[in-house]
Amino acid sequence: MSEFRQNLATKEWAIIAPERGKRPNQFREDRTEPREEPPEHDESCPFCPGNETHTPEALYRYPDGGPWQVRAVPNKFAAVRPENRPIRCADHTFLSAAGYGQAEVIIESPLHNATLATMPVDEVVQVLIAYRERYRDMMTDEDLNLITIFRNFGPRAGTSLVHPHSQMIATPIVPPHVRDPIREAMLHFDSYGTCVFCQILEGEMQNEVRIVAESEYFTAFCPFASHTPFELRIYPKEHTPSFVLFDDERLRDLGPLLRGVLRRLHVGLDTPNYNYVIRSAPVGDEDVRFYHTYFVIIPKITTPAGFEIGTGIYINTTTPEDCAEFLRDVQI
Amino acid sequence: MSEFRQNLATKEWAIIAPERGKRPNQFREDRTEPREEPPEHDESCPFCPGNETHTPEALYRYPDGGPWQVRAVPNKFAAVRPENRPIRCADHTFLSAAGYGQAEVIIESPLHNATLATMPVDEVVQVLIAYRERYRDMMTDEDLNLITIFRNFGPRAGTSLVHPHSQMIATPIVPPHVRDPIREAMLHFDSYGTCVFCQILEGEMQNEVRIVAESEYFTAFCPFASHTPFELRIYPKEHTPSFVLFDDERLRDLGPLLRGVLRRLHVGLDTPNYNYVIRSAPVGDEDVRFYHTYFVIIPKITTPAGFEIGTGIYINTTTPEDCAEFLRDVQI
Repeated sequence: MSEFRQNLATKEWAIIAPERGKRPNQFREDRTEPREEPPEHDESCPFCPGNETHTPEALYRYPDGGPWQVRAVPNKFAAVRPENRPIRCADHTFLSAAGYGQAEVIIESPLHNATLATMPVDEVVQVLIAYRERYRDMMTDEDLNLITIFRNFGPRAGTSLVHPHSQMIATPIVPPHVRDPIREAMLHFDSYGTCVFCQILEGEMQNEVRIVAESEYFTAFCPFASHTPFELRIYPKEHTPSFVLFDDERLRDLGPLLRGVLRRLHVGLDTPNYNYVIRSAPVGDEDVRFYHTYFVIIPKITTPAGFEIGTGIYINTTTPEDCAEFLRDVQI
Repeated sequence: MSEFRQNLATKEWAIIAPERGKRPNQFREDRTEPREEPPEHDESCPFCPGNETHTPEALYRYPDGGPWQVRAVPNKFAAVRPENRPIRCADHTFLSAAGYGQAEVIIESPLHNATLATMPVDEVVQVLIAYRERYRDMMTDEDLNLITIFRNFGPRAGTSLVHPHSQMIATPIVPPHVRDPIREAMLHFDSYGTCVFCQILEGEMQNEVRIVAESEYFTAFCPFASHTPFELRIYPKEHTPSFVLFDDERLRDLGPLLRGVLRRLHVGLDTPNYNYVIRSAPVGDEDVRFYHTYFVIIPKITTPAGFEIGTGIYINTTTPEDCAEFLRDVQI
């Protein structure tokens, strides 16, 4: 029997309808030809070593001296730019604002064919530290209110650039898609006196069935009201409203967990395309008691259609319980 | 220069960033091989005449006697079913409900290869009348609160069934994706005493630049804060909260406009995949002064990525003004 399930934090619903669906082991990429492995170095790639002049100047690099391991550079094709002015332009009906903001690319490795799932754990940790350092710097601009860290892997996830990279976009705008769930979390706090995300994590830890992996400070699980098969969340166990608050100890703990989870997808589903997003409270809300930073990881293996567009209710034909069990059992 | 733009009704934002983008005439489907034209009749198709026993019994058919032109049948692979019970099941953290609801398929033509863009106008009108008749019937179930009419065309829009069909799903649940914009519209009404959709339409009609087509009772336009290239809205000119309220005269006027708009996409972009959704007020709210029924038409020619998933802000690299001009100029 199918079931509506609510995401307690956002109040969004999913329909879990396993009768129509595939078993978790039927989602492996079905390729008629073997996937073309990219080379370790590609001379035409703007992110490969030797082509540093093809990108704007780096805003961050690790390590300081010698060959770089991680670089953060402004996005050359940025949708928002710091040289635009952060001014709203309203007439009675049409509100707009110049495309002010900051858009950066975090180049995760000098190796063209590296992936977060396969690179050494220390390098993943350095990527997370680069996120935090760039976040810290972007926060100092008083006109930027929201900083989104995200990663697109593969063409179905919206990128055709192979070289391993993440992106960060800081905007003057907090959109309803972000603000509405924050308001819900605030109302939940006002009713129950608890952070709704802390409560969800407690419920997941008790139930166990949707947990995929755990470290000292973080838990990865398939959410109760998953929109799509193998959707994942990583929550910090401690109440933490923003990614920028993680110290080196936490990021050194998160690195292996994140890599492990991506590796389970990589091995279990044969390198699926995916997106991930790190949500944080808007800038200035780092101390709020009602909101929590977390990772959303979405393998791109289904196509949302008219019903999903119309209602925001996703029909998911594989249960998150089955997906979590499948991912737990992957040998990594 | 790129620009943030707000959808006044939903308060959602888009980034219109034409510098990065393509011109409207660069979106035509780029096929290495010619598209395979489907046959007029396919013996293996469950929706083709002769295979009526492959679907559950029809809930609507037109005309009453003789060969059918339009049929509405329960979806055999329904995500929600009337035999489930409409009961919420809440513990402190995890809220769920049995998959109660009604899911139907509207088979739009006996011809396997017909499309709304190419079939005779009268047949499009009969499809719209079938929507309304099925809507009327679903409304009588007091446990169903939201009725969504939608159409998926092509695999990138989430369907692999070629035979022309729409779907209707009635749910006991009004999700936040639907309710939040309704709440915004209510607040707008409370502030200004006008339906925000009526106000948007007035603004669009005055500006003219985003209008694509017009009939006596309806206007089709590319919205100011379009998420994607060639996104379209069709609004009724009269304040009308629900699709079920349209009489035959309005639907006879809407048919040619809808077909014309889909034909502009069909010819101008060479049969792109698309989704459309008809939004209506929840059942019981047919008389509200603050909400408006409308069509959302979204050609599937771009891929949302991490930033869109994370923020709900879409980066659109082609302006709606250019798209509207392109569509107006298509010879149909």
